[in-house]
Amino acid sequence: MVREVMAIWREITITTRAATDFLEITGDLMADLQKSGVKTGMGTVFVPHTTAGVMLNENADPDVLYDLKQALDRIFPPSLNAAHAEGNSAAHLKAALIGSSVNLPVVEGRLRLGTWQGVYFCEFDGPRRRKLLVRWEGK
Amino acid sequence: MVREVMAIWREITITTRAATDFLEITGDLMADLQKSGVKTGMGTVFVPHTTAGVMLNENADPDVLYDLKQALDRIFPPSLNAAHAEGNSAAHLKAALIGSSVNLPVVEGRLRLGTWQGVYFCEFDGPRRRKLLVRWEGK
Amino acid sequence: MVREVMAIWREITITTRAATDFLEITGDLMADLQKSGVKTGMGTVFVPHTTAGVMLNENADPDVLYDLKQALDRIFPPSLNAAHAEGNSAAHLKAALIGSSVNLPVVEGRLRLGTWQGVYFCEFDGPRRRKLLVRWEGK
Repeated sequence: MVREVMAIWREITITTRAATDFLEITGDLMADLQKSGVKTGMGTVFVPHTTAGVMLNENADPDVLYDLKQALDRIFPPSLNAAHAEGNSAAHLKAALIGSSVNLPVVEGRLRLGTWQGVYFCEFDGPRRRKLLVRWEGK
Repeated sequence: MVREVMAIWREITITTRAATDFLEITGDLMADLQKSGVKTGMGTVFVPHTTAGVMLNENADPDVLYDLKQALDRIFPPSLNAAHAEGNSAAHLKAALIGSSVNLPVVEGRLRLGTWQGVYFCEFDGPRRRKLLVRWEGK
Repeated sequence: MVREVMAIWREITITTRAATDFLEITGDLMADLQKSGVKTGMGTVFVPHTTAGVMLNENADPDVLYDLKQALDRIFPPSLNAAHAEGNSAAHLKAALIGSSVNLPVVEGRLRLGTWQGVYFCEFDGPRRRKLLVRWEGK
């Protein structure tokens, strides 16, 4: 079987709503996947920013995201006596731990996530306009 | 060189043994890789759960995993006064930091890991039956 | 469109300079990408070590990396009363959180990173000679 693919990177622009914001992008990704025509393969979401990240987490109870915000603020307090003088050092640290990309399985033309999983853009220095790079590789 | 690939996702079912459990899955992955026939390429392991993750870490001294459990419990204490009412908020937070997928190099039909590296399914809300999605992309 | 690819893994050897060292490898990766001839696709960097990782972060102000070192030392103090007897338990824990691989978009033959993003090898138990595995997949 020879594979024919069109695995280009596409940009999605989003607008975050707060200094820390976990913005669900699962719907945007599903729409983009459908446009790509990929039926079996893998999606990759890449965040081209240094004070934001991307992760999978529960999309049923918003309290999970509230708890995550509290926990990250406890680990990296905004009052952190940091060398980086722009006042957003904690945002860089949170982004480093959350990570800059996720891999997403594509099966039968759909995202094959777990029942409770959603994909979240993690804003740590907003609100702002932000970009995502998305690629669907497969056939 | 035209590549012929069969990069499908396969499910592996595992059973975790404790509330927090780092279960080595390197052997399961090696067996699955052999079935796939891929000789040069990349494996991706995806965890379709929101209270579990996957990582690489040392497989020689089990104390490393014991220390990781202690450290994560110190960062996210089970007694965490969390908004999420199901009592497993800390599990979601640990999963967010560990991450939901890993990339694995495949060279000459074998996993090309470091000498001391193993792949671990990270259970944070067990014991349970869990699923992994695995894909070998290459030729 | 049939894709012709040569997605092999190549090794890059680096030398870290301190116990904790965030060594920028963006330039090494750009040179390796050019050799590969890939124009559109994805790079993957994999770290075959258990006391080191790889991440993207800001490459403009070195204070960001200094702050990250301080924050990780606060979370995982070197004085950690750890079971693992080799004295580098904290290094394993930091590596687990930072992660062992990154995905990098390739567009028009170049790394398509954000304006302030660099790729960093994260040494937590140096100084040492270390290896990276790098793969450019695409056409």
